[in-house]
Amino acid sequence: MSEKAFQDYYPENVAHCYGCGRLNSLGHQIRTFWDGDETVTRYTPQPYQTAIPGYVYGGLLASLIDCHSTGTAAAAMYRAQGREMDSEPALRFVTASLHVDYLKPTPLDGPLELRGRVLEINGRKVIVETVLYAGQVATARGSVVAVQMPENFGLDPAAAKDQG
Amino acid sequence: MSEKAFQDYYPENVAHCYGCGRLNSLGHQIRTFWDGDETVTRYTPQPYQTAIPGYVYGGLLASLIDCHSTGTAAAAMYRAQGREMDSEPALRFVTASLHVDYLKPTPLDGPLELRGRVLEINGRKVIVETVLYAGQVATARGSVVAVQMPENFGLDPAAAKDQG
Repeated sequence: MSEKAFQDYYPENVAHCYGCGRLNSLGHQIRTFWDGDETVTRYTPQPYQTAIPGYVYGGLLASLIDCHSTGTAAAAMYRAQGREMDSEPALRFVTASLHVDYLKPTPLDGPLELRGRVLEINGRKVIVETVLYAGQVATARGSVVAVQMPENFGLDPAAAKDQG
Repeated sequence: MSEKAFQDYYPENVAHCYGCGRLNSLGHQIRTFWDGDETVTRYTPQPYQTAIPGYVYGGLLASLIDCHSTGTAAAAMYRAQGREMDSEPALRFVTASLHVDYLKPTPLDGPLELRGRVLEINGRKVIVETVLYAGQVATARGSVVAVQMPENFGLDPAAAKDQG
């Protein structure tokens, strides 16, 4: 896709996340897009990202749900504010809590699709529900409470830590 | 430590997990031990396993909590049955649900310690609470519902899938 992903708008100082940072060459580098009122990420796992042979590692699924959901939270907040994602100040979210229900084993032999929708926006908090599909089958369902980061987070770890 | 970890007892066909499989050379290969009634895993993150620069990626923390907890579930079930971990049949658990509360940012500059305790054993289900520490500071708290795998899981993906 030539369209820009949510993650393409993350400011450079917060674009190193192992899950979704475009500047982390060793990470998953997921890319998330709007599809109407839902958000979509597609990801193809590697053979070594396994749990039981033939099935995807649950920790990877949790990781994908996490970053897909924080990306969705940011995009939803821009939308709620009627702003473009390249406008200032940049919005970036961290995870306050993550819940994943593993519905079925997720086969390792094909691409996965995550679909998110925003359940609630309340102040700096956004709640996102994300369902993960292998083919047409929903194999995991996640819920993430995402909180907007302080604007200085990532610029000065010591200062950010004080706000943790 | 020369002591055997829980994961050293996993049968070969289920020892390939990216989080805890001793046979997955690209994975985290976590090792978990009893410490009284608690279980302990120590893990030192790599610099690229970052979220915001200077802090550990939340997906990694979820992954560590997940595998630490399923390992704890297995060890607890052996104990509850009065069995050694090298006795047959082997017990191995999968995650039904994972919940993580991120309490504070987790610094990337040192080893992490996960401490688990068993909240409930009920039939084939074990509920484990795991707290993750950076130094003396609890930075994340997880709860995992783990379920004992069918005995044939991992031997024949097609058969196991039917039981999913």
